[in-house]
Amino acid sequence: MTEFFDVLPPDEARAAWLAQVTHRAGVETIAPLAALGRVTARAISSPEALPAFARSTVDGYAVRAPDTFGASDSLPAYLAVVGEVPMGQEATVSVEKGQAALIHTGGMIPPGADAVVMVEHTQPFGDGEIEVMRPAAPGENVLQVGEDVVSGAEVLPGGHRIQPQDIGALLALGLADEIAVIRRPRVCLFSSGDELVPPATQRLKPGQIRDINSGTIASLCQQAGAAPEIMGILPDDADAFYAALAAALPDADLLVVTAGSSVSVRDMTARTIDRLGAPGVLVHGVAARPGKPTILAAVDGKPVIGLPGNPVSALVMFSLFGVPAIAHLLGAAAPLQVRTPARVAVNVPSTAGREDYVPVRLVQRDGEQWAEPVFGKSNLIFTLVGAHGLLKVPLNATGLREGAWGEVVLFA
Amino acid sequence: MTEFFDVLPPDEARAAWLAQVTHRAGVETIAPLAALGRVTARAISSPEALPAFARSTVDGYAVRAPDTFGASDSLPAYLAVVGEVPMGQEATVSVEKGQAALIHTGGMIPPGADAVVMVEHTQPFGDGEIEVMRPAAPGENVLQVGEDVVSGAEVLPGGHRIQPQDIGALLALGLADEIAVIRRPRVCLFSSGDELVPPATQRLKPGQIRDINSGTIASLCQQAGAAPEIMGILPDDADAFYAALAAALPDADLLVVTAGSSVSVRDMTARTIDRLGAPGVLVHGVAARPGKPTILAAVDGKPVIGLPGNPVSALVMFSLFGVPAIAHLLGAAAPLQVRTPARVAVNVPSTAGREDYVPVRLVQRDGEQWAEPVFGKSNLIFTLVGAHGLLKVPLNATGLREGAWGEVVLFA
Repeated sequence: MTEFFDVLPPDEARAAWLAQVTHRAGVETIAPLAALGRVTARAISSPEALPAFARSTVDGYAVRAPDTFGASDSLPAYLAVVGEVPMGQEATVSVEKGQAALIHTGGMIPPGADAVVMVEHTQPFGDGEIEVMRPAAPGENVLQVGEDVVSGAEVLPGGHRIQPQDIGALLALGLADEIAVIRRPRVCLFSSGDELVPPATQRLKPGQIRDINSGTIASLCQQAGAAPEIMGILPDDADAFYAALAAALPDADLLVVTAGSSVSVRDMTARTIDRLGAPGVLVHGVAARPGKPTILAAVDGKPVIGLPGNPVSALVMFSLFGVPAIAHLLGAAAPLQVRTPARVAVNVPSTAGREDYVPVRLVQRDGEQWAEPVFGKSNLIFTLVGAHGLLKVPLNATGLREGAWGEVVLFA
Repeated sequence: MTEFFDVLPPDEARAAWLAQVTHRAGVETIAPLAALGRVTARAISSPEALPAFARSTVDGYAVRAPDTFGASDSLPAYLAVVGEVPMGQEATVSVEKGQAALIHTGGMIPPGADAVVMVEHTQPFGDGEIEVMRPAAPGENVLQVGEDVVSGAEVLPGGHRIQPQDIGALLALGLADEIAVIRRPRVCLFSSGDELVPPATQRLKPGQIRDINSGTIASLCQQAGAAPEIMGILPDDADAFYAALAAALPDADLLVVTAGSSVSVRDMTARTIDRLGAPGVLVHGVAARPGKPTILAAVDGKPVIGLPGNPVSALVMFSLFGVPAIAHLLGAAAPLQVRTPARVAVNVPSTAGREDYVPVRLVQRDGEQWAEPVFGKSNLIFTLVGAHGLLKVPLNATGLREGAWGEVVLFA
């Protein structure tokens, strides 16, 4: 049975919708060096300890700590230098009582030694001897075996978005070959509207406009870690519309239809999505502006979104619903939406019970950050080009007064 | 003559260094749909007005505004419906005095009409007539020709990092083919150290460790919009080292050498970079921790960086210097470093005159954000894996007290 929610606030709409989305993108294996920003399919454990041998963290002398106890400038300890630890090789020289071995940062602690005295706290003394002016505690300036990670420890959890240092950590353990990550969700993007022509069209006929939402939404998909596919422009014809969506659904992880903004076209879009399968349309309209007539549906556990055709509405609504849906399909936390506080430069009216998103430019005045609304109809893509982000007017506010602090969601 | 600055604060070091970097990455042309995150090589102007025809922003009736003046629920205006404007086609029906034409959102305003009355403010009245219950001002619910952008206007400035809506804006104007962007700077990454082996090495010999910095720094380069190339591991031999760097320089936009951390290796790295050409090494050591022994050089206007070998130091220093250098080569503003305020969970000691960067986890406690330091030696890559970002201890602070507010630079 289809549940149907009427004009919910965005957070409630998203939760009710994603609760019906049981589908997840599949798993593939890739090299760690190609895995930046991808999401781990499962936890990865360490096959070995890191470091695998005790290493010096400074340039100095490997010593037996008790030989240095009580050493000071006025009463140094005297040690015989019995050799040098070569970099990248096993330390073969053995340090016995009263002895020391020259060692470099990263060098292997030789047998017998348990600490390293920094070279700054020593000085040469006659033939093959050094004076040590400071005591070293056992383990001082030594990185112990497994101090970074022990063998068998979980290195990265499942559902983790891979960062540069994570790639370094995998390489450090010799996991350079293949790791399991979630496949980039395949997002199939359709536009509809008899007035739309492909963006490459050079000479428009009167009444025609170019399809730009496919390109904008495809770019948001890329940023969110998905693989968008621009499927083209559908006619305002219910059967052709249905046939195209039904054909795309089996190989898609997310279907997105950007429909015209007239009421008849919107209703046709909703009815066609509902025909695709159960539970069908779950949300038809969200309490937000711009973008109220957004459709959220699920078919066989897969998410389907119907976006309004106005470019500003389409971008705001895909950010509110499409980007979190991609994270959901990846089994990952949503990518960070960067928010910054700013004072509102002019009164921004709104209506309680609706979240408003107003394109703004950020400017610095007297050391404070101000948000200047770039007013424009939601048909105007260039209001967004000049803006740094969207000022959010909260659900239960009747607007934001000039000078009040508000929250700006920055464009990535 | 080589200028040489001794242990400068990071901001001063960066400015002194980049002032000597006159080289810029070249220009290439690509399709807008492939241009997300790229930087425009020059300003792009609009070849046409947008919209190219006056359009309706609502569903309703195109009218002559004066025909509706004074209309109200009790005294509606009566208009004869003379036709419907088809979507995507020229409006051929002409609206004369006392007439109206049915129009959909996005439809072309027909000749004679200058406003649109929303369908909600009308009702059918007998045969081919409507009642209009509200007056429409001239231009109401109409998007005028050029209201989004006029022909010849600058659409995107040069040096602009392309966002999803910018791609939509280019497509809207039919600029779907090729635009000029700055080539991704080619960053050649070398590691050095006799103890290093390639990350794919499965069985390490005692004293060996895998090269992980190349992978970490390559990932940071990718995030910053550059094209990294991992050039391999150099021996600790000045002539071989020099030969490899000199051979790479002509085709590189930025050279990065991650050297061992022992003093002798660091000095060899600095001397070798200095041999490459003028002005050579400009900064040898920055007032920051971890990563003090960083080398910043310029050769024939190209930037060269010598990073310390410890993975945490290398990552912090590349973020402070390498990422802004890539933006400089692109002629673009540096990508946004996301900073968030947080209260410090424990006392963090530091030294005035030095910026400290401490890996931290962010946790929420009683509605406030706290930064918990993940203490570890800078040799330990796994301290970074568990962290959300770096707590910055400012240059002139002697530390941050428990409970104080600090600034955390988030990992992207």
